[in-house]
Amino acid sequence: MSHSNPSPHVPAGPVRPGPGARTVLRPAVTADIRGGFWRDRREVNARVGIPQGPELLESAGNLHDLRLAAGKAEGEFRGDYPFMDSDVHKWLEAASWQLGHAHDPALAADVERITALVAAAQQPDGYLNTWFQAGKGAGRYTDLRWGHELYCAGHLIQAAVAHHRSTGDKALLEVAVRFADQIDATFGPDKPIDGFDGHPEVETALVELYRETGERRYLDLAAYFVDRHGHGLLGGEAYCQDRVPLREQENVEGHAVRQLYLLAAAADLAAETGDGELLAACERLWTAMVATKTHVTGGLGAHHDEEDFGDPFELPNERAYCETCAAVASVHFGWRMALLTGRARYSDLIERTLFNGFLAGVSLDGERWLYVNPLQVRDGHTDTGGDQSARRTRWFRCACCPPNVMRLLASLEHYVASTDAGGLQLHQYATGRYGGLLGDAPAAVRVETDFPWSGTVRVTVEEGPADRPWTLSLRVPQWCAGHRVSVAGQDVPAAADDGWLRLERAWTAGEEVVLELDMAPRLVEADPRVDAVRGCVAIERGPLVYCLEGVDNPGGLDDVVLDPTGPLTEEEHPELLGGVTTVTAAGYRRTLPNDGWWPYRTTAGPAHTDARSTPRHDAGPALTAVPYYSWANREDGAMRVWVPTS
Amino acid sequence: MSHSNPSPHVPAGPVRPGPGARTVLRPAVTADIRGGFWRDRREVNARVGIPQGPELLESAGNLHDLRLAAGKAEGEFRGDYPFMDSDVHKWLEAASWQLGHAHDPALAADVERITALVAAAQQPDGYLNTWFQAGKGAGRYTDLRWGHELYCAGHLIQAAVAHHRSTGDKALLEVAVRFADQIDATFGPDKPIDGFDGHPEVETALVELYRETGERRYLDLAAYFVDRHGHGLLGGEAYCQDRVPLREQENVEGHAVRQLYLLAAAADLAAETGDGELLAACERLWTAMVATKTHVTGGLGAHHDEEDFGDPFELPNERAYCETCAAVASVHFGWRMALLTGRARYSDLIERTLFNGFLAGVSLDGERWLYVNPLQVRDGHTDTGGDQSARRTRWFRCACCPPNVMRLLASLEHYVASTDAGGLQLHQYATGRYGGLLGDAPAAVRVETDFPWSGTVRVTVEEGPADRPWTLSLRVPQWCAGHRVSVAGQDVPAAADDGWLRLERAWTAGEEVVLELDMAPRLVEADPRVDAVRGCVAIERGPLVYCLEGVDNPGGLDDVVLDPTGPLTEEEHPELLGGVTTVTAAGYRRTLPNDGWWPYRTTAGPAHTDARSTPRHDAGPALTAVPYYSWANREDGAMRVWVPTS
Repeated sequence: MSHSNPSPHVPAGPVRPGPGARTVLRPAVTADIRGGFWRDRREVNARVGIPQGPELLESAGNLHDLRLAAGKAEGEFRGDYPFMDSDVHKWLEAASWQLGHAHDPALAADVERITALVAAAQQPDGYLNTWFQAGKGAGRYTDLRWGHELYCAGHLIQAAVAHHRSTGDKALLEVAVRFADQIDATFGPDKPIDGFDGHPEVETALVELYRETGERRYLDLAAYFVDRHGHGLLGGEAYCQDRVPLREQENVEGHAVRQLYLLAAAADLAAETGDGELLAACERLWTAMVATKTHVTGGLGAHHDEEDFGDPFELPNERAYCETCAAVASVHFGWRMALLTGRARYSDLIERTLFNGFLAGVSLDGERWLYVNPLQVRDGHTDTGGDQSARRTRWFRCACCPPNVMRLLASLEHYVASTDAGGLQLHQYATGRYGGLLGDAPAAVRVETDFPWSGTVRVTVEEGPADRPWTLSLRVPQWCAGHRVSVAGQDVPAAADDGWLRLERAWTAGEEVVLELDMAPRLVEADPRVDAVRGCVAIERGPLVYCLEGVDNPGGLDDVVLDPTGPLTEEEHPELLGGVTTVTAAGYRRTLPNDGWWPYRTTAGPAHTDARSTPRHDAGPALTAVPYYSWANREDGAMRVWVPTS
Repeated sequence: MSHSNPSPHVPAGPVRPGPGARTVLRPAVTADIRGGFWRDRREVNARVGIPQGPELLESAGNLHDLRLAAGKAEGEFRGDYPFMDSDVHKWLEAASWQLGHAHDPALAADVERITALVAAAQQPDGYLNTWFQAGKGAGRYTDLRWGHELYCAGHLIQAAVAHHRSTGDKALLEVAVRFADQIDATFGPDKPIDGFDGHPEVETALVELYRETGERRYLDLAAYFVDRHGHGLLGGEAYCQDRVPLREQENVEGHAVRQLYLLAAAADLAAETGDGELLAACERLWTAMVATKTHVTGGLGAHHDEEDFGDPFELPNERAYCETCAAVASVHFGWRMALLTGRARYSDLIERTLFNGFLAGVSLDGERWLYVNPLQVRDGHTDTGGDQSARRTRWFRCACCPPNVMRLLASLEHYVASTDAGGLQLHQYATGRYGGLLGDAPAAVRVETDFPWSGTVRVTVEEGPADRPWTLSLRVPQWCAGHRVSVAGQDVPAAADDGWLRLERAWTAGEEVVLELDMAPRLVEADPRVDAVRGCVAIERGPLVYCLEGVDNPGGLDDVVLDPTGPLTEEEHPELLGGVTTVTAAGYRRTLPNDGWWPYRTTAGPAHTDARSTPRHDAGPALTAVPYYSWANREDGAMRVWVPTS
């Protein structure tokens, strides 16, 4: 592992607040996941996930369309959508983060080749979008609602920032700057076009480009775009985040990914400009979203049609949308909020999202994907195929999710730790080394853990300010019913303050902190306004949400009942699903007499002869649950997260 | 009221089985709704619903597009879809049935004018579809999956049959026959095209055209089309009813309206040809549909995307699709099954559908419509507008539902009664006069009732065979917990046999039967596999499903709880919603302390400090429910059919 990051004092990853940013925390400067659960997932991403990208982008036509735009190929335009370029850009971003971890000549060559192709497709004035250059688009910037030109530009810029931060190479950054300048010359209150893109993305990208180049114009342009939303310029639809200005919005709405990308940009702006109104809107909307529109997996988005958030507490199981991209976007937004405010809850949701709603989006072998992540697949499910299938797919017509998974896994180490002047904070528990600056003084810790299978986390101080006490802060997860902590073998008081266990002392290099989190499996229930799961419980253990799969529970899942008074038994299965701990619950299976044709019946009074009679309970085998992230890696079948208790 | 039906011995309405048809029952020959609930709804349909059609079809562009195709106008084609002609045809059908009830010179003139326009747009060989003649279609019959040409042809034929049966006029029938002959010359195993339309409709229409004209070719063509489904000719999608042949299908699937129109055609074929395999498929699929995919309102279709049935027991509330057209189609299919088999359950479902899932589709004033019929609208609902809005709309871009409502209301009398050689059957209770042939002998009854407000139904025999006993059969609804019956003032034994109360005697003209149905309000619960309504009850009274509306229950509906041990109180409100009986239930409103940010909590063991604490129950006002069909006729707000009990 080697970082080619040009400066040792700024982090190489995404979200690098500028020198004047008003964040409570700063991202760790060094972050290196070296073992354990996430190392394994990242190795699959490095070995299978990212390397398969060029071939998939070739067969889906994305690279062909770039060659068409570059005048280097002939034939028909092959993309089905105006946003196909973004798949290429997101792959470049993922590959760039990966190149920052380890030198890989084949990957570097692919990145160089595709970067050259992107550069060749760029028009002389900086504009770049194959759909409008060589495809079916009517004319540049004539369809801001659906054209996705600035969305694609945003992903190009993000890729360029990643490439430059990881490798120091300016080839892609120069392409991105040319496009950003073209956009800056075109959009603005006194520019040719007063408008914004129907799909946010360019906004965060411009903030990151400002951070990377120091060019203030990009920050101002991002601020302009964010504030032009909500005034009806694109027709006033919530889908395009155009119904109401973010500053006035009371709850998240419309297309989930669009909403979350816009919120991430608002958080970036609040960080860089100190805009308290934007910060308040971000806090208000995050809080409302979590309280009313978040599935237990961290998944976001309740409607298949329009990929929409849906109404408060409308959280269906079979039709949960929970787009994988929305999980990625939630992590992006949440991490910005964690840095901005220092509050642990943002990293609580990041943890839940990463281990559940996000990770389910990719198969264990790294080759098949879920665009939507339902919480239930019924017995007798008829799958209609297509991108929104409940069955894993090799690639999608709209392939936004796979490269989003690749880029988040490849940059995951940057969401683990942070620092402030007084100490170092561990937001997530992953074996590795994390460090940064406490003011001017470097500090670093080494973490060893088998989390999420074990709740034991060993943190060894490697370096820190020798002349003064400093605080090592450990997040005590929201789900954790009890924890203990020892320093150098001595138990110490372990009260958490709003999610943070803060250990302040004059640390010596080599001192070890052992945190023990209660990992007993538990049953959870939902706010009673979540009608879809009334009378049901979900099984959780540590940060993992569990589910029942048909393959482990023969006889179907539509009639299983979990006995909440029974024990929950955990068992390690190193051979199963890449190594998981299963949880077994007591339960039984309903048997319903087939004595009527109408499936509704009067609850009281004389029973109608045609009515369905009371269910009989048959003793049945225990219910075996596996982690939700590992579902759909064996045979196709039924699955459910929420299980009725009667 | 006067019928111009040329023969007094065949019914004027839809579904007139041919002389050789193998149906257990025959539709009543005379059927005349003269008072009560449905008379009122039909008067609005006659006074407001149907007469507004020409103006709405003018402003939506349908008539303009017909004039374009006829060479009588210039300008742009205005329709957004290839099926816009069908709105015109369905309106013509509705108006034709209406002309059969009462002479109305203005309406007759509109029908004549629009019939002439349709005829003028027809091409010399009989083909007629404005989308392909003057619009955006690439070429005749080149896009069977989406072109809707035969679907539109089917609605034209249905309109022509209605027009001819109601008025004796052949103008529209001649247009329809020309088109049917063009189709017959084009489609078939040895014809230019071996295929079928992605949206069934022409199949039932061809059977009706066979019945109207005696031309066997139309019946054979219908049989060909039905059996070409399910062999992958249109790509093999369930959406187009092309995944599996109907004869092998185990449950309804795909686009709900398409499935139901196809099933109606299969039932028609089973009736006319005695095809036992088709009859068995119809029975099997109706039974599976009702047991696993039917909302308590009779509404069908669980998915907004693809207007799909969804999986078994997947019956969401907020996102119930329950397209108004699917309710109409369910009545069409069910009535054919009722005649075919004589089983009461088909009319049970028709009753439930008519009073609930169907009737909610039109506002009380006849001017605003619902395309989808959700069972819940939440507090804080953000409506996105469009055709699938939960708010009533004046007209739709895809305006299939309004004329479907018009044509069913205008022909509703034909679903009330039937006869067989041994007697007369009353399937629905509506004040009026109903009669037919018992073999050769005419029989007729007069019905007087305030159903569904009252459970008292008075049936007076007007005529019948004088030389022999015959059976008056009264359907005892599936929902009814108790009933009594008297003949000529004397109580008689009243056991129902599979839903039919059969009174066999030598009837004298003037004898009166009084049926008393128990109308006490009741709470119903769902099969436990309907996860979406676990722990909830719905209020019903008679055939009516009730709902809570925000306007009657201030403070919102997300937190209401119904106390199932409390009384249900009914109250007549002549002034409310056109006159309804409300039902009041005991209940309260949860108050949830806002003490945590995460809406899920561990059910047992030590509570996490961040977890949401137990809900407190506040005593609250009683919950007031109104009939579901009457919802959304006051202010926009929340609504729910299913209410939690704890």
